[in-house]
Amino acid sequence: MSVTIPVIRNILEANDRLAGQLRNTYAENNVLALNLMSSPGAGKTALLERTLTDLRDELRMAVIEGDLQTDNDAQRVAATGAQAIQINTEGGCHLDSSMILEALKQMDLTALDVLFIENVGNLVCPAEFDLGEKAKVTLLSVTEGDDKPEKYPMMFAQSKVLLLNKIDLLPYVDFDVDRATRFARALNPEIAVFPVSCRTGEGLEPWYAWLKEAVRAERR
Amino acid sequence: MSVTIPVIRNILEANDRLAGQLRNTYAENNVLALNLMSSPGAGKTALLERTLTDLRDELRMAVIEGDLQTDNDAQRVAATGAQAIQINTEGGCHLDSSMILEALKQMDLTALDVLFIENVGNLVCPAEFDLGEKAKVTLLSVTEGDDKPEKYPMMFAQSKVLLLNKIDLLPYVDFDVDRATRFARALNPEIAVFPVSCRTGEGLEPWYAWLKEAVRAERR
Repeated sequence: MSVTIPVIRNILEANDRLAGQLRNTYAENNVLALNLMSSPGAGKTALLERTLTDLRDELRMAVIEGDLQTDNDAQRVAATGAQAIQINTEGGCHLDSSMILEALKQMDLTALDVLFIENVGNLVCPAEFDLGEKAKVTLLSVTEGDDKPEKYPMMFAQSKVLLLNKIDLLPYVDFDVDRATRFARALNPEIAVFPVSCRTGEGLEPWYAWLKEAVRAERR
Repeated sequence: MSVTIPVIRNILEANDRLAGQLRNTYAENNVLALNLMSSPGAGKTALLERTLTDLRDELRMAVIEGDLQTDNDAQRVAATGAQAIQINTEGGCHLDSSMILEALKQMDLTALDVLFIENVGNLVCPAEFDLGEKAKVTLLSVTEGDDKPEKYPMMFAQSKVLLLNKIDLLPYVDFDVDRATRFARALNPEIAVFPVSCRTGEGLEPWYAWLKEAVRAERR
């Protein structure tokens, strides 16, 4: 339906203007903003629970949680002691910059090193909406299949980091880490790929090292 | 962004008109049309491979495949011997009725009992777009978590069937089939819930029985 094209372009342009404001705000406060994206159930909240707990003595971190409904994820995040602001999109399939601007009114960025934005679980739509973040971070669960970077290319093409989660399940599924990595690198040669298990904690150290280096770069 | 609301309403109204045409076309040909939806990697194509193979002597079936890019899934389906028409949405997050009308030009509905429409992998957007189907069928992989009906309610509220797939992985994940079923039934008391493994074939018989009964109802 061609009628949708100019409309969508206008929405994206309006979003991009607000994303520019957000980018300036993060930069002024030396806050590393990361936009966390994946299919539903790939483990975004589990990654945050681990990261917020393991690095709590080293980094000052907070989370904006995007969900269609419920504040389940914000409650899980808040249980780690970190600040969590919930955005309910009321059925909307992605976060946009106007929602983030609103959420930031409840947050003191001067007290933060890292702002995680957990997007709505959706491997398609969130990739189109810039939230002013320094980097997009995509999770892919090994249970979803190693063909997903090829089949859902936009998100993988735009992300600086790909976490291949649930590697504790590799013995029970047909997932080739090298194949998934190859598909992702074909779209995005610079992408950092970290195989991890947020359940067991395996493989998280390289992700933490990436995160700490990104925080240092933000302060320079 | 309130500007989006009337536009989206117009798009949905236009789609609903075309869905009405499709509904009539299916009815005239006594074809059971099913709209298959899930997150990426939940097993829609695997379910089709099993179903098309196991029931090929009993039902005449064909598939319309929706993907952002690639024809990988259509090739997997075609390998079973069934007709498979690929729709590439070029990044679009759902199928709409205009795409289905176009695809049907390549299909002889008088030679079919069942038309499966495999939607784009996305637990949010496809639920908003009526394709004239008799029933929406949602897959949820047990690796995605038993909270998903509560967190992504629209799709579960609208579906006549929920297949809980990958039950062969239940020993390795925290997923409570009763809890997921309870969440789904709270939204949709009539929903039929079938725990299955498209990998091992476990649990598929009740799904096949549902399908055959739905075909009989379509002929009456």
